[in-house]
Amino acid sequence: MKVTEKTILLTAFEPFDGESVNPSLEALLAMTGVEFPGARLTVLQLPVDRFRAIEMASGRLRLMRPDAVIMLGLAVARYRITPERVAINVDDYRIADNVGNQPAGEPIVEGGPVGYWSTLPIRAITDRLLRARIPAAISDTAGTYLCNRLFYSVMHLLATERLPTIGGFIHLPYMHEQTLNKYPEVASLARETIVEAVRLAIEVTLGIERGKDTD
Amino acid sequence: MKVTEKTILLTAFEPFDGESVNPSLEALLAMTGVEFPGARLTVLQLPVDRFRAIEMASGRLRLMRPDAVIMLGLAVARYRITPERVAINVDDYRIADNVGNQPAGEPIVEGGPVGYWSTLPIRAITDRLLRARIPAAISDTAGTYLCNRLFYSVMHLLATERLPTIGGFIHLPYMHEQTLNKYPEVASLARETIVEAVRLAIEVTLGIERGKDTD
Amino acid sequence: MKVTEKTILLTAFEPFDGESVNPSLEALLAMTGVEFPGARLTVLQLPVDRFRAIEMASGRLRLMRPDAVIMLGLAVARYRITPERVAINVDDYRIADNVGNQPAGEPIVEGGPVGYWSTLPIRAITDRLLRARIPAAISDTAGTYLCNRLFYSVMHLLATERLPTIGGFIHLPYMHEQTLNKYPEVASLARETIVEAVRLAIEVTLGIERGKDTD
Amino acid sequence: MKVTEKTILLTAFEPFDGESVNPSLEALLAMTGVEFPGARLTVLQLPVDRFRAIEMASGRLRLMRPDAVIMLGLAVARYRITPERVAINVDDYRIADNVGNQPAGEPIVEGGPVGYWSTLPIRAITDRLLRARIPAAISDTAGTYLCNRLFYSVMHLLATERLPTIGGFIHLPYMHEQTLNKYPEVASLARETIVEAVRLAIEVTLGIERGKDTD
Repeated sequence: MKVTEKTILLTAFEPFDGESVNPSLEALLAMTGVEFPGARLTVLQLPVDRFRAIEMASGRLRLMRPDAVIMLGLAVARYRITPERVAINVDDYRIADNVGNQPAGEPIVEGGPVGYWSTLPIRAITDRLLRARIPAAISDTAGTYLCNRLFYSVMHLLATERLPTIGGFIHLPYMHEQTLNKYPEVASLARETIVEAVRLAIEVTLGIERGKDTD
Repeated sequence: MKVTEKTILLTAFEPFDGESVNPSLEALLAMTGVEFPGARLTVLQLPVDRFRAIEMASGRLRLMRPDAVIMLGLAVARYRITPERVAINVDDYRIADNVGNQPAGEPIVEGGPVGYWSTLPIRAITDRLLRARIPAAISDTAGTYLCNRLFYSVMHLLATERLPTIGGFIHLPYMHEQTLNKYPEVASLARETIVEAVRLAIEVTLGIERGKDTD
Repeated sequence: MKVTEKTILLTAFEPFDGESVNPSLEALLAMTGVEFPGARLTVLQLPVDRFRAIEMASGRLRLMRPDAVIMLGLAVARYRITPERVAINVDDYRIADNVGNQPAGEPIVEGGPVGYWSTLPIRAITDRLLRARIPAAISDTAGTYLCNRLFYSVMHLLATERLPTIGGFIHLPYMHEQTLNKYPEVASLARETIVEAVRLAIEVTLGIERGKDTD
Repeated sequence: MKVTEKTILLTAFEPFDGESVNPSLEALLAMTGVEFPGARLTVLQLPVDRFRAIEMASGRLRLMRPDAVIMLGLAVARYRITPERVAINVDDYRIADNVGNQPAGEPIVEGGPVGYWSTLPIRAITDRLLRARIPAAISDTAGTYLCNRLFYSVMHLLATERLPTIGGFIHLPYMHEQTLNKYPEVASLARETIVEAVRLAIEVTLGIERGKDTD
């Protein structure tokens, strides 16, 4: 008799701001074929479209009702893998999204609460990454762009529709290949480091015990 | 009948400034056992001692008369692997070396020229690293600490004693494990990235052709 | 007959983390004697003591019931004057406060909302500073140290006790004199720039019109 | 009877790289009308033209034969006023100059020495600025763009034509107004700070004693 598998949804964004890659999407694609014992991973690629991204994520969550959702995105100029602590109820875009939306200081959900906490084990994820010698730190802001909007919208959905799902957002730095032709002083991580960080974050979220550490 | 092997000396420094590791030494140790076809690599670990380091390197170079010498060291707060362009004739230490020396603005070689150029193929090394998606850039300053002192002293030796040796210095950033418990905004690279960069720099210096790129 | 004056409370913190000055306190002291037509400014210096600081600020606000409260503090390694957008309900200190408290992930107000928005005109303040050629930007995180704690606690007090007071927090970078003997790569502003920024922020908050711009 | 006045030439560059101002030019213009007792200051604005800039500076130096020449330029992304220690014999431009030249790794003077030291009192200048609470540090690289080219070319002229002139280069950071609309993380200084730094550097170079410190 088969025990019930845990289910987890992993989302990532397509490239934006003139970039041809997005480390979140690269990490998502790299998860295809990775085994998570006792769990089933579903992936969802989202457009950098303020409205469509939320619709797609919401639709999938209502349908799938997973045990957990981990949302991934790029944070320019960060030095570390940064699980986000909190989503806040504001859209304030420095640049337009890929379809031209650029709200300036609007609420995401009219009348919604100021913020939602991540319900992922962000402290445990961060500690696990540090044990694997991957630069990581809890971040106190997911910004006010599409990443924060998705994060807030999903946490609002989980709360108001009472889904049985824990969730949160993890920001990733640039991959090295994105910074090679930029000014020398832009931080980035190796593709392998980013992919391994996402794999470990999924494991910690799923509560999978491993016999041996990777470091 | 065996053709003459090329010989190359690789030097690195022990940890300093309270650190327990030095990425240059880690990279040097990782080269043990790596095959460089048609070439023989010798490694030399140097103390962070202003006088002893130069004596040891000079003695080995006079004895060994290698085809090339690549000197490695740590440059705090850099984002990239940085082959150095030039060594300058000044010792001006922000912190003391491991035995307490802290010269302030002294010449390295009394009456020596202002500078020596690296004679390594620094442009080709940098390009090779970028092709392998490793952050790299030519640096215009090796600082005024022990790294620059070793670099200058060795280039002065090669020039004045007319050794048949090309040489130069490559600065390495922190490894991730050195920054995990520091403030979040310190750049670092993965150990694997640093080791691979040093391996590629040796290959380019030796002029070894490879059939297939690693990237 | 004299019309009613507006009242404003300005708070700042004493030095901490081994520093001998705090730019917030310097700015507060510099406001003494500055004229704000139609308004009366009261200043309050707070200890870097997690509990005492909140008690002192709360007591003064209940007694004074000012039209506005502007709280000032230092944010290490920022490049700009940063009016804060939001306070969040968590204490997570990287270093202890001046009396040894170092909470790790505790709520500030048990059962309190996730966050409170600043009710200062943060967009107008930022725009005013930029017009005066002072580096400024809205910040999306006040951190999780004493600054955020004071900010959250005061906004909670204003909301729950229905005081007639708008309020918010402005983070200041280092002053130049704090960075002179540090590593070269630490951002800071001139004392005069910081003082002028605080003066302008008070003016914008009070809605004082001036005939002529300073820039 | 009047004693002989000391003479000093101050040079600065016009804006480049799409900027509308250059802090070096702003500082030069601000020196007009400043009194330096016992000395006469001449200013020279240079085009960002690899050949014309050197011709103009050389012509003026041969004619004027001043006691000192201080060359000013912009160094993007520095945090401090940085008197340069050394000029090196290479042109390697990341961007073209204002008339389209972009040499890649050429010597400035064919057969010239690797480098020339600054003959300004760079340690005394730096110390004077720090005493005035202005962020300052000796820099070990003037880059490989037009600033270094001017610096090298002038020091070569002074050395080979045996002019009675001490000389050197001082790099200035961005002024605040250049960074207001850039990403938040770009360092800059107040215009007043930059102007005061240049005034103090001239005084120290001239050996002018003042009765009272400015700080």
